[in-house]
Amino acid sequence: MVKNKIRPSAYVYPMPTTIVGTTVKGKPTFVTISFCGNLQYKPPMLVISCGKHHYTTEGIKENQTFSVNIPSTKMVKVTDFIGITSGRTTDKSQVFDVFYGELENAPMISEAPLNQECKVVKIIDLGGHNDIIIGEIVQTYVNEECLTNRKPDIEKIDPIIFSGYSHYLKIGEVIAEAYKIGKEYKIE
Amino acid sequence: MVKNKIRPSAYVYPMPTTIVGTTVKGKPTFVTISFCGNLQYKPPMLVISCGKHHYTTEGIKENQTFSVNIPSTKMVKVTDFIGITSGRTTDKSQVFDVFYGELENAPMISEAPLNQECKVVKIIDLGGHNDIIIGEIVQTYVNEECLTNRKPDIEKIDPIIFSGYSHYLKIGEVIAEAYKIGKEYKIE
Repeated sequence: MVKNKIRPSAYVYPMPTTIVGTTVKGKPTFVTISFCGNLQYKPPMLVISCGKHHYTTEGIKENQTFSVNIPSTKMVKVTDFIGITSGRTTDKSQVFDVFYGELENAPMISEAPLNQECKVVKIIDLGGHNDIIIGEIVQTYVNEECLTNRKPDIEKIDPIIFSGYSHYLKIGEVIAEAYKIGKEYKIE
Repeated sequence: MVKNKIRPSAYVYPMPTTIVGTTVKGKPTFVTISFCGNLQYKPPMLVISCGKHHYTTEGIKENQTFSVNIPSTKMVKVTDFIGITSGRTTDKSQVFDVFYGELENAPMISEAPLNQECKVVKIIDLGGHNDIIIGEIVQTYVNEECLTNRKPDIEKIDPIIFSGYSHYLKIGEVIAEAYKIGKEYKIE
């Protein structure tokens, strides 16, 4: 096994592709974010990492609320568009069919199969270009057709994977049952 | 679009499957973690969420170092095994071929195609069962055969996706070029 040292960087694979929503100057706006993750079930929390000077970040800081939407692969073109354009120069308020839940100023995307509305719990500055924003998930919404036994079904959601650089990928086939296949393993 | 409210929970999709390593009582030990994510490029940071009472968490707190290893789908059985057994009752020190980098007490897994050694920057308690551990990535190691143009290649790494509940999946095909396909989108 030849190990290569490369420049240390953030490579937790696979990376998700999410669209984060907020309100700036009274209008919904959105940004595509891949640096994010789940933190805990109870109380339910997640983290997103946002460029400090991004338009959306201003809105999240002002409102103290935001949404995290999981687009499906059918939405890959608009998802990339949201990521390569700034809310400062492009009005993104008409791009999606927007709905609201319990929080004000946290616009969610009807077209995205899964939506989470969040309130800010903590914003952390790690000395880089990002604000690390921890949110408590107030409510989760899932498209009817993406549920199996009342739970979100990743295969029906069909989320977008980000390669870390240059490509988007779709999920592939199921390879094993979790909490089960490991029972067959024996330490030699 | 019929939206169903479900119990709010952490559903950032797709979820990664990582193996976190540390040292407890002088021996390497490991735990499988899906609640984690990239935070920023510079300085490079990531976050992992660990059960407060897990054996590995003790080690991370004591050493202030840990590793995050990305297993390939070939490793799915051992990855699940690491997740369903506790270091308190199972000695996991002989499961992998372990190597060390610049940090002491951060054992990395040779068999895993990508490895990151991290030092603890911050531990956050969000009032749940987890310790939220932010780490600075001191060095990244990648198997020679998983690089393309000196960068980690997600298709060669072949990481494991966690469904959130019950299954592991592999990544599927490339669907679009990032920072490019969005240029074709026009707001109607």
